[in-house]
Amino acid sequence: MIQKKRSATLVITCPDRKGLVARISSFLFEHGANILHSQQHQDAENGLFLMRTEWDPSESDLDQQNFGSLFSTISVDMAMSWKVSFSDVKTRVAIFVSKFDHCLADLLYRHRMGDLNGEIVLVLSNHPQARTLVEFYRLPFYEIPVTADQKERAEQSQLDLMAKFQIDLIVLARYMQVLSPNFVHQFPHRIINIHHSFLPAFQGAKPYHRAFQRGVKIIGATSHYVTEDLDEGPIIHQDVVRVSHRDQIEDLVRRGRDLESMALSRAVQLHLEHRIVAYDNKTVILE
Amino acid sequence: MIQKKRSATLVITCPDRKGLVARISSFLFEHGANILHSQQHQDAENGLFLMRTEWDPSESDLDQQNFGSLFSTISVDMAMSWKVSFSDVKTRVAIFVSKFDHCLADLLYRHRMGDLNGEIVLVLSNHPQARTLVEFYRLPFYEIPVTADQKERAEQSQLDLMAKFQIDLIVLARYMQVLSPNFVHQFPHRIINIHHSFLPAFQGAKPYHRAFQRGVKIIGATSHYVTEDLDEGPIIHQDVVRVSHRDQIEDLVRRGRDLESMALSRAVQLHLEHRIVAYDNKTVILE
Amino acid sequence: MIQKKRSATLVITCPDRKGLVARISSFLFEHGANILHSQQHQDAENGLFLMRTEWDPSESDLDQQNFGSLFSTISVDMAMSWKVSFSDVKTRVAIFVSKFDHCLADLLYRHRMGDLNGEIVLVLSNHPQARTLVEFYRLPFYEIPVTADQKERAEQSQLDLMAKFQIDLIVLARYMQVLSPNFVHQFPHRIINIHHSFLPAFQGAKPYHRAFQRGVKIIGATSHYVTEDLDEGPIIHQDVVRVSHRDQIEDLVRRGRDLESMALSRAVQLHLEHRIVAYDNKTVILE
Amino acid sequence: MIQKKRSATLVITCPDRKGLVARISSFLFEHGANILHSQQHQDAENGLFLMRTEWDPSESDLDQQNFGSLFSTISVDMAMSWKVSFSDVKTRVAIFVSKFDHCLADLLYRHRMGDLNGEIVLVLSNHPQARTLVEFYRLPFYEIPVTADQKERAEQSQLDLMAKFQIDLIVLARYMQVLSPNFVHQFPHRIINIHHSFLPAFQGAKPYHRAFQRGVKIIGATSHYVTEDLDEGPIIHQDVVRVSHRDQIEDLVRRGRDLESMALSRAVQLHLEHRIVAYDNKTVILE
Repeated sequence: MIQKKRSATLVITCPDRKGLVARISSFLFEHGANILHSQQHQDAENGLFLMRTEWDPSESDLDQQNFGSLFSTISVDMAMSWKVSFSDVKTRVAIFVSKFDHCLADLLYRHRMGDLNGEIVLVLSNHPQARTLVEFYRLPFYEIPVTADQKERAEQSQLDLMAKFQIDLIVLARYMQVLSPNFVHQFPHRIINIHHSFLPAFQGAKPYHRAFQRGVKIIGATSHYVTEDLDEGPIIHQDVVRVSHRDQIEDLVRRGRDLESMALSRAVQLHLEHRIVAYDNKTVILE
Repeated sequence: MIQKKRSATLVITCPDRKGLVARISSFLFEHGANILHSQQHQDAENGLFLMRTEWDPSESDLDQQNFGSLFSTISVDMAMSWKVSFSDVKTRVAIFVSKFDHCLADLLYRHRMGDLNGEIVLVLSNHPQARTLVEFYRLPFYEIPVTADQKERAEQSQLDLMAKFQIDLIVLARYMQVLSPNFVHQFPHRIINIHHSFLPAFQGAKPYHRAFQRGVKIIGATSHYVTEDLDEGPIIHQDVVRVSHRDQIEDLVRRGRDLESMALSRAVQLHLEHRIVAYDNKTVILE
Repeated sequence: MIQKKRSATLVITCPDRKGLVARISSFLFEHGANILHSQQHQDAENGLFLMRTEWDPSESDLDQQNFGSLFSTISVDMAMSWKVSFSDVKTRVAIFVSKFDHCLADLLYRHRMGDLNGEIVLVLSNHPQARTLVEFYRLPFYEIPVTADQKERAEQSQLDLMAKFQIDLIVLARYMQVLSPNFVHQFPHRIINIHHSFLPAFQGAKPYHRAFQRGVKIIGATSHYVTEDLDEGPIIHQDVVRVSHRDQIEDLVRRGRDLESMALSRAVQLHLEHRIVAYDNKTVILE
Repeated sequence: MIQKKRSATLVITCPDRKGLVARISSFLFEHGANILHSQQHQDAENGLFLMRTEWDPSESDLDQQNFGSLFSTISVDMAMSWKVSFSDVKTRVAIFVSKFDHCLADLLYRHRMGDLNGEIVLVLSNHPQARTLVEFYRLPFYEIPVTADQKERAEQSQLDLMAKFQIDLIVLARYMQVLSPNFVHQFPHRIINIHHSFLPAFQGAKPYHRAFQRGVKIIGATSHYVTEDLDEGPIIHQDVVRVSHRDQIEDLVRRGRDLESMALSRAVQLHLEHRIVAYDNKTVILE
């Protein structure tokens, strides 16, 4: 949904027990919050309760500063993991890209159109090619080359940039370097990657070549959170399209571009709208 | 979702105001209800609040008999329309069919597989053809011919049957007779029809012929609640499939059969799971 | 396409060279054949030419008996593999099934509706459950139990039945026994299986459980020709549907049923319309 | 298919009769043409034969200049409409746009990526907004304002530009002015428009508003050739996406943008690859 109006969003996970919705909604009511949208999900298998609630903060006394202490009466008691986000404070996004720029171009266009509920703060690349496009959209572009023997140093430069610009979310828009475990650990469930196959099929390198080789009739793209294990992180969104024997590898590559752009931008939007809860190497999408 | 376990479902619509979720969830908590699933939706345009809550009734003192009076403390105050359904009491379904039996065959098969959260009580037709199929599934089959000059009398026989068997939901599985306003009024939002086009395109007769004539590249099917205005009722579900210049009218008819079966059975399932709220000639699907 | 009228279909593969279309179409013209549909495909990578031509045999002197010798002037010279099929002679189909009968029910219904361009001659099962359904459609049902130590003998009984009824095509409609290499060799590209995943993801056992475990957002079904390597044969058709975190394993199983029925019946139709050329462990679909 | 290699494409329509494929393919063979792809379609209802053949011109004596006279021995006799296109000669494309620039941005990006089998020569608009984007892609931008009382004069300026730049194809990429019959007549089946609905549903103005009002569960976009009758021309391609009660009008508009870009670029690609034959207010797509 497009959210033009101010809103606040609370996302909660905790052990399931009776009365959770009652306590949370009573708390919000007492603080003048008019609920706009609310979803709950019970994961029976894991005994987990998940909730996303969005309210109009205009008549409420809750704000980013006081929420934690006020809510602690409930959250501590219920052993909750929670995160509150007020729409005034935009999530700060960095996009990492290599040479293929279709996902980047798509994200920048959507950003300009106001479709993304966050702020793209900078674009970082290990190659110079994307600079012109990024500068067309009047965004800062940082080029940090990555070579085999200088990888650690390059990652430190990247991390410094992330810190300097207070980046909340990193989007790997066909960034062709594998991030080290150290890097990944600093952004748990805050790095989104696009893999150009229908995972778990064709994990790893050259998925279109292998899809062509296997003769599949549908190809896909998968956006997921990055974890230590390559292409094994929690899946956020997948898109697919039919192909035929007439499609050569270069056709799959070309048609896959649309899939990749769509699956990545969808995942980014879901993250920016605080609709994703990731645990147990899966995602729950609270739409 | 498949619902093997006992559950109770409450669906509410009322004017939107602060504290609704808090009051309802507190009520359920006080009565020992453990919430399994819950969705709320705010229709800002119409100032409406909609909610579907499903709970485990095994440790709760709420039942079909006492719910109304216990809940009246809230429901009257808040001007609620509400409906509670306990899974022990199955919705009683009648299927109306004419000659084409693909939707009927599909529904009967799903019923036998336990996919439908209700009970098909009888099948009624204005033709004899479907009898063998219905009897294969060991269900009663009633043939009530409808002729132009005996239509009123035929409808009275149908209504008598519906009353006798306490039918809650009528499914028009390619039933080719138009029901009178009088009939429709007795089952508000309780008659589901399948129209063999992507409404509002090709309303009325011979939609596949007209789709062929217009040269569309996608055909569809639409399930909707029946209102007085033919093919104008609230849409529940739509399915589509690509077609090409190679498809002749008989191909569209053949491919449309799959669409019709899927769109109709989906609508029936949603109704039987109490997931549809219809107002303003639209539906809200609480999934 | 539905083919009510008589037609003949020639499918050819041969090394690509200039003038192939000219020679073949001249041959057909000289023999009075009016071409109804024709497709050619060049596989540049393998230097292969593929062609499917369908004509009206009513004014042609070509028939099943004389075609081979008349066509040999071209076919030998060009090193062609070819197959001619006259619509009067229906492909004879056997369906193998175990306990899950949704694909069987779907195929039998389509057969009765005249959607399948072939003749279902018998249904064979290692269990008794499907008998009632098969007999409802007035088709012979053979039960051949398969036990670990009697597998070879059971296969021999199956092969005897296939020979006795001159079966051209075997459809494994969720038949849960692995066929031996010996069996498979006797029906090259004439056994179609449905695998309940989006191959090559989740090859092998319990694909829905593994899809659930991995948290995929789309599930699929794959119809393919059976080769010696389990789930590795040439893919004919694939269908997919979106799922969410709300879907439990039993929901995936239920939703997968529709996918399996659709992907299998589509593959069977394509085979019966002589639209599939399989080589190099892939299929070319000449639509 | 991506066509990097040189190729020539012949598209033919004529009254159906025996021996057409034989004569055409013999002609091509005699002139040294190695056929790469070929499709035929018979429109039985209208007694029409349609063919698209693509060959490698490198060993053939056929070229743009001599083809017509050489082919006339067949084409005149058979009363053919035909068009030959050599890949060296790119189709010259003009894009018309108003304020919404998502389709334009998408086409320009694909053009830069080499996905479009033609040359975008200029972009024309009745508003200044798109200039920056167009100039980023280093293409000429012409602004011709259109006012109610100066419409005729504006169209004359447009036509002059089309003539000056020898434009073959005009793409209306959300161009919000209705072209006059006089303009349309000068580009028969050479103007492609994108309509932001699933035609024939919601013809005319404000389709997303009307789709929202009707409560449809799927929205669409339709690309079509422009004829005198607004939104009534032959449909080339359609795309659809599911929506729900949560989607407000602005959500439909936003989600529709992707559909419009995809449906329009697909139509443009098909046209540029000479895959569309339009007659009888329909299209045949020779893929």
